[in-house]
Order: sequence, then C-alpha cells, then structure tokens
Amino acid sequence: MRDVAVIGVGITKFGEVWDKSLRQLGLEAGYLAILDAGITSDDVDALYIGNMSSGSAIGQEHIAPLFADQVALTHKHTPATRIEAASASGGLAFRQGYFAVAAGQHEIVVVGGAEKMSDTNPSELVDTLVSGADREWEGFFGATLPSLWAMMARRHMHEFGTTYEQLAAVVVKNHKNAKLNKKAQFPFEINLEAVLNAPRVAEPLGIFDCAPASDGAATVILCSMDRAQDICDRPVKIIGSGQASDFMSLHDRKSLTSIDSTRFAAHRALKQANMTIKEIDLAEVHDSYSISEILAIEDLGIVEKGHGGKAVEDGLTALDGEIPVNTSGGLKARGHPPGATGVAQIVEIVTQLRGDAKERQVKGARFGLTHNLGGTGGTAVVHILEGVA
Amino acid sequence: MRDVAVIGVGITKFGEVWDKSLRQLGLEAGYLAILDAGITSDDVDALYIGNMSSGSAIGQEHIAPLFADQVALTHKHTPATRIEAASASGGLAFRQGYFAVAAGQHEIVVVGGAEKMSDTNPSELVDTLVSGADREWEGFFGATLPSLWAMMARRHMHEFGTTYEQLAAVVVKNHKNAKLNKKAQFPFEINLEAVLNAPRVAEPLGIFDCAPASDGAATVILCSMDRAQDICDRPVKIIGSGQASDFMSLHDRKSLTSIDSTRFAAHRALKQANMTIKEIDLAEVHDSYSISEILAIEDLGIVEKGHGGKAVEDGLTALDGEIPVNTSGGLKARGHPPGATGVAQIVEIVTQLRGDAKERQVKGARFGLTHNLGGTGGTAVVHILEGVA
Repeated sequence: MRDVAVIGVGITKFGEVWDKSLRQLGLEAGYLAILDAGITSDDVDALYIGNMSSGSAIGQEHIAPLFADQVALTHKHTPATRIEAASASGGLAFRQGYFAVAAGQHEIVVVGGAEKMSDTNPSELVDTLVSGADREWEGFFGATLPSLWAMMARRHMHEFGTTYEQLAAVVVKNHKNAKLNKKAQFPFEINLEAVLNAPRVAEPLGIFDCAPASDGAATVILCSMDRAQDICDRPVKIIGSGQASDFMSLHDRKSLTSIDSTRFAAHRALKQANMTIKEIDLAEVHDSYSISEILAIEDLGIVEKGHGGKAVEDGLTALDGEIPVNTSGGLKARGHPPGATGVAQIVEIVTQLRGDAKERQVKGARFGLTHNLGGTGGTAVVHILEGVA
Repeated sequence: MRDVAVIGVGITKFGEVWDKSLRQLGLEAGYLAILDAGITSDDVDALYIGNMSSGSAIGQEHIAPLFADQVALTHKHTPATRIEAASASGGLAFRQGYFAVAAGQHEIVVVGGAEKMSDTNPSELVDTLVSGADREWEGFFGATLPSLWAMMARRHMHEFGTTYEQLAAVVVKNHKNAKLNKKAQFPFEINLEAVLNAPRVAEPLGIFDCAPASDGAATVILCSMDRAQDICDRPVKIIGSGQASDFMSLHDRKSLTSIDSTRFAAHRALKQANMTIKEIDLAEVHDSYSISEILAIEDLGIVEKGHGGKAVEDGLTALDGEIPVNTSGGLKARGHPPGATGVAQIVEIVTQLRGDAKERQVKGARFGLTHNLGGTGGTAVVHILEGVA
C-alpha cells in the first residue's frame, strides 16, 4: 500500500442548525475542503460518507450519491459510498477512503461526515442514540446510551476511586479549549460547580457530562503522498489506521472499565506507524460522555488504567499539558453530530499539525492521534497522522 | 492490486420470516458460507455488511459489530463495517470487501447482506423504500418507489413501444427460474394473464411487476486468489468491479429510459475485466420492478436501447436463451431483502460458475455478471466473475 496524505479540510460550525438541511451542511463542509485543497470537483475520484441516522432521523437513506450531487460529482458518475457505524461512522468512512487511495484504486478521495439531529424530536433522539448499542438486549429493556455509560462510570468510581470532580474536570477542560475554536457549538467556559450542580441524566452523569446531539458536517480530502506534494505545501501524512470491534452488549464484555475495541484499534494503528503512544503529541478522543474520555486515555495507553480521572484533574491533558487531548473542545464542547465527529477529529489534528490552530495551537506538534467510538464501543477506529515539515 | 476469489457462499431462504430476527438470519447465512468455504471464524480478518434499513425498520444501527458477534468474530476484535446504499448495499459491501483483499489489507474477508422487512408495518414500508430515492424532491411530494419506476416504464412504452405483455414476460421468466431454486421466496410459476390482470400499484406496474420486500440474508467469503487455490477446489475469481452514481431525483437526469449509473458501472467493470458484454454467459440484474430488468439489460449493453421488452418476450434471456438473466428468480421471485440482494446475486453467479446450480444450471457458464441498483439508480454496482476450471 502506498502513502496517503490529507490535503484539505473543511468543517461547518456545529450546533442546532435550523436553517440548513443535511445536504446543505454536507455541501458547505465539502466546498470548504475542496477550496482548502486547491482542487476542483473534477479532480475527485470517489466519495466516502459517514452518517449514522439519516434513515430514521430525516427519512433519507442512500445519502452518498445525494452528497455527490451536492458537490457536483454526478456529472462524472463518481462512486459514492456511505459507511455507518453509529458515532464511529465518520472515522470509519475516513479509514475506507484511506484504503481506497492506499490501494491505488483511486487518486483523490473526498471523505465527508454529516449528521442532522435537530430535526428529530427529543424522545425519538434518545431512541436513535441507543440504536448504536444493542437494541434487543439493552434498548428494549429500557437502557439509554447515557445510562449504559453511567454504569461504566459507576464501576470506574468503585474500582479506582474516580470522583465526580474528576469527571467534571474533563468537561471544564474541553469547554476551555472550545472557547478558542470558533466552529465549536459551545465556545465558552464552564466552571466545576456548574457541572457538579447540573441536573442528573443518569447517575453519576449530569447534563454537562453528556455531549450534545448536534447538526454539522466535516470533510477532508485525501491524495497519494507523491501527488500531495505537488498540490499543497503542507500535506499531513496518515501513518497508522486501526479498527476493532467489541461485543455490543455491556453484559458480554469482560470488564466495564475498559473498552477492548479501543485497545485493539490503538495497538493496530501504533503497530502500523511503528510507534509507541508516548511519541504522540496530541489526541482527539471520543468524549461522548465525560467518563468516555477517561476510559479512552486509559485504553489508548496515555495513562495507566484507573489513573485517567487524576490525570485530567492534574492537567496532563490540558492545552498546555504533557499531551493535550481534545484541543477542539471534543464532542462535549465542539459538538457531536455522530456521523461528522470522526471526520471533525481529523480536521482538528490536521489543523494542529499544519500549525494553523491559532490560540489553541499545540507548539511543535508533529504526531497526532484520533480515536472515534460507535455506541458504547462496539466499534473503535484510531488514526495516527504526521505533519510533514 | 492482487487477484481475489470467492471461496464460499451461503444464503437463507428468502420470504416473510416471522420466526427469525435480523441477527439470526445473518448468523444462518454466515454459518453456511463459512462451512462451504471450509474455514473457521478464526480465519476471518474482516467483515463487511450490506444493509439498508435496520435503523428505521428495527431500531438498530451499528449492525456490523453485532453480526461479528453472531458469527463468533468478537473474540478477535475483528473489524466490521456496514455499507448502506439502499438496495445496492449488498453489492457495494461486496465491492469494499473485494478491495480490502485486493489491496492486501486483509487475507480472508466475509461479506454479508441482510435485511428484515416484515417487522415494519406496510405503510411505513412504503416510506422506507422511498428513502432510497430523493426524500426532499420526490418522497415529500408523494412519490413512492413504484410510482417513480412507473414513470420510467410509461416513458419506455411511449418511446419504444414496450408493451404490458413484455413487462409481464420478465415476471413470468423469473418465476419460472425461481421454481428451480429452493431458496426462492416464490418458487412457483405464474402465467402472463395473472400478471396482466393483477391490481395496479402504479400504472403501468401491477402488483406482480414489483419485487417483494423480503426478509433474508446472504454471505460470501473472499480470499486472495493465491491462497484460495489451497483452500478450495473451485474458487471463483473476481475480474471486474464497477461503481457509479447518478442524480437521485429523476427530474435531474437527461433521460427517463436509461440509467447512467448502470452504464458507467458496467463500462468500468468490463474495462477492468478487459471484456465486452458479449462474452458474458449469464447475468443477475436488478429487477426490483419488471421495467428495471428491461432497462438493465439495455443499459448493460446486452441488447440495444429500446429492444429490451422484445428480447425478453423472444426468450433471449430465458434459462435456455442466449444469455440467461436472473436464473435465481431475480429480486422478483427469489425475493428482495434490500441489503441481501447484491450478495445473493453473487451467490447465484458463484453457484452457476461452479456448476452447482442443478436444474437451473447454465451449461458451460464461465463468465457471470451481477448488477445491483440503489433506489431508482442513484447507485449502481456491477461485478464480473470467472469460474476457474
């Protein structure tokens, strides 16, 4: 397989976007990425789209050719493929696009992620979210996505002494980062007391421990490394890609405090990159809930199992910490349109590795990692990118 | 890219399957394919799943890891990826699996397609089906999938003099073939009068011009050609793969009587195979409606544009015709679980090329083609397979 680079990125402002449809969001992000790469739609050989819920949320399946049409690819009858893996849809679409270029099947590939959640009424939304967990063995018995993560949080508190304050510290950090990201849904700070005193969604998780269900889209353009260097000055190279599954139902897993799909996906990506986690300069991880980020940094190997809460509290993962995590604001504060999230993580890492992140720039960042989960971890996708000086 | 072969196939009986869930259907087809290939689940490196509507139909997204679990792949945390392209989901999943092996990314890949339609009530089903067309520009204005195809049929009758009897001849032929396929949903013959006298769904299409919305699953196992020859006696080689998009809305297309995505996908697949359509011995094409098969054989180049109806009437595509089409019974009579259909087409072609099709065997078949469409043709996928003597 040949080397592949990201040569362009685009992202919409995430939020409750009442005045744009899913296809309009996709168009906006796609247009920005194509402009950024300095190519035209004529140069594009294939399109991969990550989306979780367009079928149930807006009654539209088969959205890949729809997006192809929006970004003016239909005149060439460009192949367009949708990938669905709940909230890992975007990361997994990126992986498929990467393989398409790496295999030499296509030269320039667009990977987009998009989701429209606001058009769904709130009670249906809860139902849509749990469709990423096991419907027959979890959803039908009343489990919701936050309640499943709450069980993991409770067990983590029990086994390792993780505190409410440590969970809240994740939220405070991510909002602080989002304040520096004008595309974020919640670009403002929040203090520890507000997080702790917020209404509970599922004990021990309060409303501010949960990422929002957002509208938004993100797009990246991939190209073979050889050609990338002719097209742009600052290609960002993909050096590792790992994907893994886990049991969908929590009751089938051997632990509630470790997500094996994350461990295996990280191991596979690091092995391909021939690196250890210690060499990574920054990471975007899947903080769908505050506990999710704590599990993620442990299972990725950034900290030892059980030490995640303390590490966040101590500032290890802060913007000026040893390894900044979720400099974009994360799912929590940048916002979380499930299909777009995995691609938005790539957008942030590419922005950082190019040195374009302005006030939230991580100085001297060379290696970045993304970690995208579906549901409670049935799917995990990890990518490692390298900025080329 | 290296050569890839199909080394195992499995399929459930299609129909209204009230006593099995989606995951049970997937398990059954997966188990049969693994048995047929003579491998174990330990040998499998990745899973690709085609499914259209599990989110809206049974409230379950993220089904790829669920299937991985059902076929005992979770202990290895095997990557599992779902592809959605309406009724082209299965064909497109096959294409992704093919590329994964061709690129050297994986050695043995399972491709499954599955759908459960019976659990959806009939009025919602109409809605689910049109979610494969353009919801905002077609569905919201009252168009259903049969009514969109009916417009194409009317225009075909107007331009080329295609008759009701010619449309019905597709149905009669496909039922005749299905009678010889014990996995078919409707394994019995139907006569021309019954088709012509049936209640109309959308003029000129009657109830028997429409494929059913079925339950069922199909699975195939892929492997590099080199290794395939060690594992099995009769590998079937994939020699061409083509995918193309078209405008989702009919009003955007330049013609109602030709589907450009079929033309482009076929051209790309034949080019890769370095063949002309005249060398193909048999084909499974996307007969979601009787008119769909007529458009398909024309756009694939099997017959000239406008001559499709007459060709079917004359027996060109009959089991003993010059180029048998839909020997399995097609979507119409084998049944049509959207996500499974594209994989079921591969199962039929592989069965034929191995010489295992018994009473419906096409003598001396060496090259087979599959043609799978999403919605009204927003996506088309064409594959060409070769039996290895």
